[in-house]
Amino acid sequence: MARSIQSLERAAAVLRLLAGGERRLGLTDIASAVGLAKGTTHGLLRTLAKEGLVEQDPTSGRYRLGAELLRLGSGYLDTHELRARALVWTDDLARATRESAYLGVPHGQGVLLLHHVFRPDDSRQVPEVGALHPLHSTALGKALAAWDPAVRAEASKGALEAFTELTVVDPARFGAELERVRARGWASDVGETWDGVASIAAPVLDRGRAAVGAVGISGAVERVLAEGEPRPWLVAAVRDCARSVSRELGAGRF
Amino acid sequence: MARSIQSLERAAAVLRLLAGGERRLGLTDIASAVGLAKGTTHGLLRTLAKEGLVEQDPTSGRYRLGAELLRLGSGYLDTHELRARALVWTDDLARATRESAYLGVPHGQGVLLLHHVFRPDDSRQVPEVGALHPLHSTALGKALAAWDPAVRAEASKGALEAFTELTVVDPARFGAELERVRARGWASDVGETWDGVASIAAPVLDRGRAAVGAVGISGAVERVLAEGEPRPWLVAAVRDCARSVSRELGAGRF
Repeated sequence: MARSIQSLERAAAVLRLLAGGERRLGLTDIASAVGLAKGTTHGLLRTLAKEGLVEQDPTSGRYRLGAELLRLGSGYLDTHELRARALVWTDDLARATRESAYLGVPHGQGVLLLHHVFRPDDSRQVPEVGALHPLHSTALGKALAAWDPAVRAEASKGALEAFTELTVVDPARFGAELERVRARGWASDVGETWDGVASIAAPVLDRGRAAVGAVGISGAVERVLAEGEPRPWLVAAVRDCARSVSRELGAGRF
Repeated sequence: MARSIQSLERAAAVLRLLAGGERRLGLTDIASAVGLAKGTTHGLLRTLAKEGLVEQDPTSGRYRLGAELLRLGSGYLDTHELRARALVWTDDLARATRESAYLGVPHGQGVLLLHHVFRPDDSRQVPEVGALHPLHSTALGKALAAWDPAVRAEASKGALEAFTELTVVDPARFGAELERVRARGWASDVGETWDGVASIAAPVLDRGRAAVGAVGISGAVERVLAEGEPRPWLVAAVRDCARSVSRELGAGRF
């Protein structure tokens, strides 16, 4: 069996470093963060730059992620079967609920957004495709964690970070929340990730009834909630969307 | 000076291969396309898969691009100063013209779309961020090629591909077209890339008056043209947008 290739692992570590935190780093900072000699690190950066995977600022000499990653990321989206099948349904979901709609898949310790339909109200909105949202505080993340034990394990790794006063940070309470999500068939996030924002999500199941993703909506608590709870008609719209995408993937009616 | 790292170059070649054409390939096909032994290729793919940069289909065993590329590509967008400054202006451009608005930057032999504002008419539209459009036939590409000699050289490499009956494929005619673009200050594409679609674009200039990107709109020829020519009020809106973003980057009024 082939061994892992060290220089490739190191290059991936450099890219991960540049994707988080500071995002524009000098050679010395990068070398010390990934634990390599400056010469080795320079060789990695030089090759990454040649391939368009990092870019060096001509003035400051600092490095940041490169444009080729955007093109490759777009290639990833184009081949994603779940995304292709969910496009029309999430579009209809945004239209029916008048809220932003999302499709997410589990990725490491987060939910990666594969599709984002803007709230159809002509307001200024920034695309969130490619963003990684937390598992333990978002509706999409909870929907995935409640149905997939591997995602649940990722969500429970380490401390649960408090993003707002309402984030559930106690592991036992989080476990109970996932049981509730599973029992009622959908997940919510009421100001647990962003103050004043509520979300509703449901899992997309494949032929084997495994959760391969989740769809949901997100919006101001004033619109999404009634008497502190997600409005039933919005919950119904989200679950209808999840069922439709699941059926496209070959799952039976449920 | 550090040498390029061979395994990293090979890994980048595998990713480029998976980003174009077939997009789901078996080990044998990948090895033969990149000209490496199967064992070497397997080692690369195994490491790329471990880092989330490729994914292997459990049923067919074929490889495709991985989710980590989407996350990294999104990190690239987040750090892009031009994109950050252009967000509001391209939003206003789409609103004012009632057409899709775009921001593109040169990338190899194409224009990479960094931002895409949907046509504000509630129709179903698919995000095109991360797509690579041709230089010689699109308004964004011509605007970049007319102002940047390096981009012009890339655009003129090899044969000019005909996408429609109207694509300019003769190098002399293409050169004359770029002169005209430069002289009037904006570029157009009238059915030269997609039948029935017309586009208008203008360059974004930085402090040193170098073209760092281009902004534009795109829509049905019936809406964008009048008597076969781009409507002057749409041209004015695109040029206003390009000037606004250029001023944000420190360019003087022009």
